Amino acid sequence: MKPAVVLVSGGLDSATVLALARQAGHPLLALSFRYGQRHAVELEAARSVCQQLGVREHRVVDIDLAQFGGSALTSGQWEVPKHQSAEELGPEIPITYVPARNTIFLSFALAFAEVRGAADIYLGVNALDYSGYPDCRPEYIEAFERMANLALRATVEGQFRLRLHTPLIGWTKGEIIRQGLALGVDYSVTRSCYDPDERGYACGQCDSCLLRLRGFAENGVPDPAPYVDRPGGFQVPPEQS
Amino acid sequence: MKPAVVLVSGGLDSATVLALARQAGHPLLALSFRYGQRHAVELEAARSVCQQLGVREHRVVDIDLAQFGGSALTSGQWEVPKHQSAEELGPEIPITYVPARNTIFLSFALAFAEVRGAADIYLGVNALDYSGYPDCRPEYIEAFERMANLALRATVEGQFRLRLHTPLIGWTKGEIIRQGLALGVDYSVTRSCYDPDERGYACGQCDSCLLRLRGFAENGVPDPAPYVDRPGGFQVPPEQS
Repeated sequence: MKPAVVLVSGGLDSATVLALARQAGHPLLALSFRYGQRHAVELEAARSVCQQLGVREHRVVDIDLAQFGGSALTSGQWEVPKHQSAEELGPEIPITYVPARNTIFLSFALAFAEVRGAADIYLGVNALDYSGYPDCRPEYIEAFERMANLALRATVEGQFRLRLHTPLIGWTKGEIIRQGLALGVDYSVTRSCYDPDERGYACGQCDSCLLRLRGFAENGVPDPAPYVDRPGGFQVPPEQS
Repeated sequence: MKPAVVLVSGGLDSATVLALARQAGHPLLALSFRYGQRHAVELEAARSVCQQLGVREHRVVDIDLAQFGGSALTSGQWEVPKHQSAEELGPEIPITYVPARNTIFLSFALAFAEVRGAADIYLGVNALDYSGYPDCRPEYIEAFERMANLALRATVEGQFRLRLHTPLIGWTKGEIIRQGLALGVDYSVTRSCYDPDERGYACGQCDSCLLRLRGFAENGVPDPAPYVDRPGGFQVPPEQS
């Protein structure tokens, strides 16, 4: 079976996608990015996730998205927004949007895939919880796949047809976590917080934490990842993780 | 008028495209890449070209295409092929093909364009002289443009429709040079050679040199750029450039 390239961020979604690609029988090639994040803790998480799930080759590509400005996640200019609850998240494009991020990530995945002879690329985009990100929608993914098959020597010469797999695109966070738990994903090493402390402990208050905690709550299980403090909703203290 | 983003390599084609974007009235934003080329002399050429043509902002993005391997231009594993004449170049995909290169370059251009409010991206791809590069064909460019308009906040929210401009796509090298000369492009600072010496002087023998020399010959003018030696065809000695 041909290898698959999986985009791995260190978050909950991409860990689940990695487990799904493994279940499909692919030897796993993982790709992560160091892109001027304000927190690098997620790359450590990506490494742990790859180790756990038997990734054959894990590449970390350095790219400087911060030099153009334009995002709370990379520029350091804006505060990461905090909502009172996940229900408050609206349909607008979040301030955490990074211009062309998925397009840039997928472009590198194309190069990696072609050089290694991988015909399948997996990524953990989700159109449900963050409907605001334009590059997480099915119509974007379809357009990218179409473009990709016109871009590569391997596809133009007919060696294979490249396919983008976005198994999570229509799932809620709760459904993602349920699938991951069924596949044996250990979520304790994954990190989702937009604003973790220096130890990598989650804030429990940013949009990403709220969605994650709601997903675990829906499954009736505690989030095994560490949080800086634990008011009512957080069921597992940091020292247990 | 909105600014335009122009991909500038330091070569003859992109210098001509820059002049065409300027003629269209756009304030110019230029984007170049340091991507593990075996020769960095073209970035110096890119800087000179941008200076000459009044570019407002020139960004050089570092990306590591060499880490995946797969190209004579970046891996250092293969010799750059040399043909006896430009007529020998066949329709096959050249060994100098770099997987997903234009897709990666254009992805960064999208980010730059969105952050600066530029609706137009210019690039100097050419489908004629190198018909073998899949990511230089009109159908690829159209598919990328379609994908891009689904990817960005600015286009999805209707602030503008993003357009890719490839004015050279159907021109011969001779036609490109004729247009550039008419627009006052000084080709002495541009560099096209795949295998220049340490001074940046062109070899005069690689495919890229052969095409360039043929283009100048068609216009009946000398190539003002420096070459390491000058057998019959080369009309301008290095010391004059």
